Amino acid sequence: MNESPTPAYEVVGYADGSVRLLDQTLLPGERRALTLSSVGAVAEAIRAMRVRGAPAIGIAAAYGLALAAERAPRGEVRAAVARAGAVLAATRPTAVNLSWAIARVLAAASAAADDTAARADVVSTARHIHAGQIEADRRMAAAGAALIAPGSHVLTHCNTGPLATGGLGTALGVIIAAYRAGRVTSVFVDETRPRLQGARLTAWELSEHGVPYRVLADGAAATAMAAGAVAAVFVGADRIAANGDVANKIGTLPLAIVARHHGVPCYVVAPVSTIDEHTATGAAIPIEERAEDEVLCIGGERIAPPGARAFNPAFDVTPAALVTAIVTEAGVLHPPYATAIAALFATPAHR
Amino acid sequence: MNESPTPAYEVVGYADGSVRLLDQTLLPGERRALTLSSVGAVAEAIRAMRVRGAPAIGIAAAYGLALAAERAPRGEVRAAVARAGAVLAATRPTAVNLSWAIARVLAAASAAADDTAARADVVSTARHIHAGQIEADRRMAAAGAALIAPGSHVLTHCNTGPLATGGLGTALGVIIAAYRAGRVTSVFVDETRPRLQGARLTAWELSEHGVPYRVLADGAAATAMAAGAVAAVFVGADRIAANGDVANKIGTLPLAIVARHHGVPCYVVAPVSTIDEHTATGAAIPIEERAEDEVLCIGGERIAPPGARAFNPAFDVTPAALVTAIVTEAGVLHPPYATAIAALFATPAHR
Repeated sequence: MNESPTPAYEVVGYADGSVRLLDQTLLPGERRALTLSSVGAVAEAIRAMRVRGAPAIGIAAAYGLALAAERAPRGEVRAAVARAGAVLAATRPTAVNLSWAIARVLAAASAAADDTAARADVVSTARHIHAGQIEADRRMAAAGAALIAPGSHVLTHCNTGPLATGGLGTALGVIIAAYRAGRVTSVFVDETRPRLQGARLTAWELSEHGVPYRVLADGAAATAMAAGAVAAVFVGADRIAANGDVANKIGTLPLAIVARHHGVPCYVVAPVSTIDEHTATGAAIPIEERAEDEVLCIGGERIAPPGARAFNPAFDVTPAALVTAIVTEAGVLHPPYATAIAALFATPAHR
Repeated sequence: MNESPTPAYEVVGYADGSVRLLDQTLLPGERRALTLSSVGAVAEAIRAMRVRGAPAIGIAAAYGLALAAERAPRGEVRAAVARAGAVLAATRPTAVNLSWAIARVLAAASAAADDTAARADVVSTARHIHAGQIEADRRMAAAGAALIAPGSHVLTHCNTGPLATGGLGTALGVIIAAYRAGRVTSVFVDETRPRLQGARLTAWELSEHGVPYRVLADGAAATAMAAGAVAAVFVGADRIAANGDVANKIGTLPLAIVARHHGVPCYVVAPVSTIDEHTATGAAIPIEERAEDEVLCIGGERIAPPGARAFNPAFDVTPAALVTAIVTEAGVLHPPYATAIAALFATPAHR
């Protein structure tokens, strides 16, 4: 799936009637490629977060439908795909890309000339969804890399690389492309508590792509910036409101505030599908609170004393005023974002 | 050692010729009181961080000298104390309180009328150092608590409680006193990566003192502030420069920047001995980089991939402009700090 010149790893793929996944729950300790030959196995992999990142989940589900189509008896393709769609849609209720990808594949099955044609159309639609993500990532990477001066040290948060999208990634895709272009020299990787996606996944991806990096505690990013060692911050987004407010992994808001304090630009990299024109501002974005044990325990070991409680919001909202620019596959958006986003959705391609 | 009305734990004490310590490396999982009857055992406890926090280390070392004096044969007290002083001073090279406490006890031994009198003087000087810390902590707690409006939720970082000073603590001492006075309702406790002193030690101390709290990832403090849930931030200090710049545990600088962004006051609580009038500004404070494994591993388990590097500064420097006030046992210092600190050191008590 990866057109990169460096040693590639396949995050999600489809071949010979099976879905292929790199099991992300085992990284960075073990690199195990899974070959899944049933819809149930694909559903389990999504539920258990063996594949994660909204775009990558959507692609895995689409390939799960391809599997269902190719393995269905003649005349039963559409019925099998519909059953598989229901199973896969129930795995992660909140990932928008999941339901979007499933709906798109089911629509292709319905629109096919007949049940036999549906088989080929389902498979090609799934491949098309994956190819579209790869192309969107490539465009974001090129647009974002152009923002970075040659020889820069940059900082990122959470994991937004190939593991999250099945393409080159969003913010990390920009960084990898910029490294290849000589614009990025090294990367500061926020470990990203509580789930440590930075230390576990982003560090692994940068190692695989040969990009120099150092992991740091989230609280140390300000010290790197105060020392003048960070040229720019690049982060992804889970949802962007119509006014440019950005919901992203917890820890993004303080990073943006600290970057602004030190005069360091803070760029958000996300596909247009992440922008929700029906959410007016960040105040309308519900912030999920996750299990307290994500904070109170690490690797199965309890850190905090018995009876301790935790406050564990999974995301935070960064006000648009702290975002230097938003990099999308349709170009770079600049403030005022309300205007830029309205103009984007007024173009024929996104209406 | 603790005059608190709540269930007490003895952080450091001296009785029957032995030094008593609560082994902080086992907290919060196990509460083991150590009785140490040799200078070597005390030195090992300091080196292994069974006792930590600069004031608590100083007190432990002073009691180690008391032990040496009481166990020395007649006529050999001064020689034994001098030998013990050399051993204890070599345990942690950077803790100023350690060398200060040892020097003070050795001076008492030298000033004694004779070798026999030295024995009693060494023990009483050690007890006096501890009593002085308890009194300083009490004064800081009273002065700091007065800054908090009744019914407030406050936020703190790292561990600055009884475990760190052998008294009531600095920033956490303020919080505990304010809770007893009805001024603090609950506490947000930064887990404080990489060493997790907040999740491990501050959470345990608040549990012991019956103060409601929630642990949060360091990156989640901004979300609590953005929600209007934090009335004030209280932190300690490792060194304060003559202009009021504050070196403290990594993660303090971003906290102060984020507090300022949200209009939340940020108070530093530290004894006068922490203020170094010979350090002009924070730029002159060397920032220790600690072992990379503190970031790359948690609880013995490696998180990051093989070959990963880390950036692990142990402290950061918060510019004086971000500090709302500095609470000391000699009163509350307000900006401009250069003037306030110069005036403080011009008073007879601190000259």
